[in-house]
Amino acid sequence: MDSCVCAALAARDYDAYALHCSYGQRTEEREAQAAHAVADALGFRDFLRLRLDLFRRIGGSALTDERIEVPRAPADGAAIGAEIPVTYVPFRNAHFLSAAVSWAEVLGAKTVLIGAVEQDSSGYPDCRPTYYRAFQELIHQGTREGDIIVKTPLIHMQKKEIVALGLELAAPLELTWSCYSGSEVACGVCESCVLRLRAFEQAGTKDPIPYAKRRETGPQAGETSQEGAA
Amino acid sequence: MDSCVCAALAARDYDAYALHCSYGQRTEEREAQAAHAVADALGFRDFLRLRLDLFRRIGGSALTDERIEVPRAPADGAAIGAEIPVTYVPFRNAHFLSAAVSWAEVLGAKTVLIGAVEQDSSGYPDCRPTYYRAFQELIHQGTREGDIIVKTPLIHMQKKEIVALGLELAAPLELTWSCYSGSEVACGVCESCVLRLRAFEQAGTKDPIPYAKRRETGPQAGETSQEGAA
Repeated sequence: MDSCVCAALAARDYDAYALHCSYGQRTEEREAQAAHAVADALGFRDFLRLRLDLFRRIGGSALTDERIEVPRAPADGAAIGAEIPVTYVPFRNAHFLSAAVSWAEVLGAKTVLIGAVEQDSSGYPDCRPTYYRAFQELIHQGTREGDIIVKTPLIHMQKKEIVALGLELAAPLELTWSCYSGSEVACGVCESCVLRLRAFEQAGTKDPIPYAKRRETGPQAGETSQEGAA
Repeated sequence: MDSCVCAALAARDYDAYALHCSYGQRTEEREAQAAHAVADALGFRDFLRLRLDLFRRIGGSALTDERIEVPRAPADGAAIGAEIPVTYVPFRNAHFLSAAVSWAEVLGAKTVLIGAVEQDSSGYPDCRPTYYRAFQELIHQGTREGDIIVKTPLIHMQKKEIVALGLELAAPLELTWSCYSGSEVACGVCESCVLRLRAFEQAGTKDPIPYAKRRETGPQAGETSQEGAA
């Protein structure tokens, strides 16, 4: 959803190219299908699918290691973001940004946009503004011209504001996929689904995609904050 | 050669793991074979071969794009390093370091070594100390613990000093591969071969690997500094 809204901004303001990353996440094919559909709908000039087999080989994250269970969201939603979750993929965004910067150098593009969100997300260290400032300096030092700019237009926004911006831009949110669990229908109970559903609810609208189950308000039996890592 | 000497340092000082990167360079298979042999000879705990198809798909470098010719070294060797050459692979080392840092996070390793060399190299922006300082800050900001250290033990050394250190450490230099052109025998005339041969010569020893042709001193007819990019 964040990527889609960021892509809608890119399509509005630039002659844009889409980079999508398949990094061995459980929902890899479903996400790639969604990303391609979004890029087509927004009229991007090209769509490049990066494939990284590294994460599946090294493990270490519930998103890429089948032996680590994807946790449900904590029953008390307020706890999301309190610590780095098992869905953290080690140093993941550096791989995505590196690919984007390499491609930008070849294309002669001067701007890279990424839909990272700090607040209302899940405490990932590579979603914070300081991280992107550090990456900006790396580009300055490590590229041919040193003048490619990384922009994170959503980074200070809350999820409900992202939904509102998506609606304003007519971003194709109905084509997106956020669920961590990976099936034909979004589960509705993983952290990513819960954050997304809450965002639409707080924005006063209904998420256009179908869900297998929608969480009701308040704690439910049998849910704990860290049932993964088994 | 630089990687081999760096690896010999790592094997001396750490319980080390080897990461090798196949990124679509012309000599990909030959380099992987050499790297694996070096890691075996040095007794590394594991050898991980990263495969990146990005660079072959986006092009932009003589090392990964068959349409761009790999230049011979300039007839006047002193010109090497004067500008960024066509063998520059856009933002390449960020991909290598990102993979190393991701793997280090999973292993719980706290040190990443890379055999980057600033002086006597070819003017690549991602071989300078400022680049590695920027990457260090990125790790600090973007990892779980923020405490993985990148070390570049060769960065201030001249090639001849690297050869001398390799001999001192009994690094298996006879197993290494440096040639950009890619065949069973090193060409002896590309920039990488010329720098390597000169280093052994200046260190007062003979390169243990065979060459198809060895450059004699002084300019030769028909050689220019930028005959690539055709």
